[in-house]
Amino acid sequence: MAGLIGTVTLNLALDVTYHVDEFVVGGSHRVTETRQRAGGKGVNVARVAATLGHQVLALGFVGGLTGEIVAEELFDAGLTALLTPIAGETRRTVAIVNGTDGDATIFNEKGPSVSPDEWRAFHDRMPWARLGVLACSGSLPPGLPADAYAELAVRARHHDVLSVIDVGGDALLAAARAGAVVRSNAAELRDALSADISVEEGARQLVDLGATAAVTTDGPRGMVAASKLGSWRALPVEQVAGNPTGAGDACTAVVAAAVAESPKPDWSEVLKSAVAASAAAVLTPVAGDIDLAAYRRWQPQVAVQSL
Amino acid sequence: MAGLIGTVTLNLALDVTYHVDEFVVGGSHRVTETRQRAGGKGVNVARVAATLGHQVLALGFVGGLTGEIVAEELFDAGLTALLTPIAGETRRTVAIVNGTDGDATIFNEKGPSVSPDEWRAFHDRMPWARLGVLACSGSLPPGLPADAYAELAVRARHHDVLSVIDVGGDALLAAARAGAVVRSNAAELRDALSADISVEEGARQLVDLGATAAVTTDGPRGMVAASKLGSWRALPVEQVAGNPTGAGDACTAVVAAAVAESPKPDWSEVLKSAVAASAAAVLTPVAGDIDLAAYRRWQPQVAVQSL
Repeated sequence: MAGLIGTVTLNLALDVTYHVDEFVVGGSHRVTETRQRAGGKGVNVARVAATLGHQVLALGFVGGLTGEIVAEELFDAGLTALLTPIAGETRRTVAIVNGTDGDATIFNEKGPSVSPDEWRAFHDRMPWARLGVLACSGSLPPGLPADAYAELAVRARHHDVLSVIDVGGDALLAAARAGAVVRSNAAELRDALSADISVEEGARQLVDLGATAAVTTDGPRGMVAASKLGSWRALPVEQVAGNPTGAGDACTAVVAAAVAESPKPDWSEVLKSAVAASAAAVLTPVAGDIDLAAYRRWQPQVAVQSL
Repeated sequence: MAGLIGTVTLNLALDVTYHVDEFVVGGSHRVTETRQRAGGKGVNVARVAATLGHQVLALGFVGGLTGEIVAEELFDAGLTALLTPIAGETRRTVAIVNGTDGDATIFNEKGPSVSPDEWRAFHDRMPWARLGVLACSGSLPPGLPADAYAELAVRARHHDVLSVIDVGGDALLAAARAGAVVRSNAAELRDALSADISVEEGARQLVDLGATAAVTTDGPRGMVAASKLGSWRALPVEQVAGNPTGAGDACTAVVAAAVAESPKPDWSEVLKSAVAASAAAVLTPVAGDIDLAAYRRWQPQVAVQSL
């Protein structure tokens, strides 16, 4: 099970999607279609990695009856999960999709607070010996220390497991210092380092801080990876129209899968798969899904430059 | 327990209310406050009757984890419930309250279907011997016969229990023919009988059809009651601004409580309490609540005319 990808979603949610014929502010609407599934960036990573044929283990907190629904849905989706119970109730997000234009209006409940004891219980059940990599994504629930991801990265390294951490702000710098493979987008990178830095230079600075590698999505300009061996830019395959939510999570899934197979992957090759997976995610309407045929078609076509 | 009020909510729901600072169509919103409680017109009737000091028993269908949340919330609210399990998942409604103007935008999930076996199970557990009255309110879930309320009224009468039925359309006429006390608003009454009928004449026609009594809310013009002994109009106490949702349910609660105490109440007295309770419901922001102090202040002031 050296290839097992542990995906951490500290702020798991139940994502509810309502379709209505015509959204009218102040109106009363009959919901024509209801969908709900487990959500949070780490769950998207798990779904994409599983779709690409990798073994995944979804990790996170669940509480209350909403937490039970989340656990059920992960099970129904075929995702093995190891969930830590908490006293609070798992949060919901509600997306209203307007039938006239397809636009979504989103409402995010505040997540439950996680106590120090619950955070300790989460660590205690980490199956380190089974993990090939630990992929951590998304916001932190109230109650957890700001450096929670860096703490996980340090513990992972202690068990000889590499971690891939998708986060912004100071937590990005802390994850780099803890030796993780760090994932971010260009805005998060500039927010953490400096407003006028190039993505290439920013990725290199994260490696200088201690990151094993830095992989940064750069919107329509592709992606950049940096490690101690060099840095690379992958160009996008073609302009893809669709739903960009989940594109970054598809990238994280590919990076985590590569690291699970080898702690020192060929980053120019990883970028090819990451760009193809991100574009294939944009084609699907729901975050966490990717268009596998498009991924396979695009993957060999991605151009990568050594910087 | 002759005074026990059984409240029937065949289309029970979990009512979720989200408060947001500023509602923007197509935007992503942080929910600043989340409330959820059991909903459906019959639950509002139960809450108001309990607030007025009556013994209530909430009856309905629950399914899935949302059904469990509904059952928990009824318990937490101190409402005794006798719920029939169904295979489908209890529906949710989501109301988004906009912080800038207090307006609510509402999304109603389609309810679960109820099978003939589940409808039979509902009948089988009816505690007729304990009931003083059966109050039925609100829409029917898919799967139930259109004359479900009339069927309940006939069974109730067979057990010497009077029923109070708040419904519109053909079901209103069927309930009248089944000998129930029928509750409706002016629009429902005209919709069922004829567009240009007066509320007074409409109420009398329902009694002629077989209704034990007919109590019709007439918006700002007050309320009308008719029985074989006569008909009465109660005038509103004063113009009350607020949330009219639940005002009709407060009227039904008062009517049910009166019938539970005596099968032949003094309808002019019942109207006084019904008008006061409806106005006291408008003062509160949530359907099912009433302002008890306002109710007590207004109840003696209501003017009733014999027609």
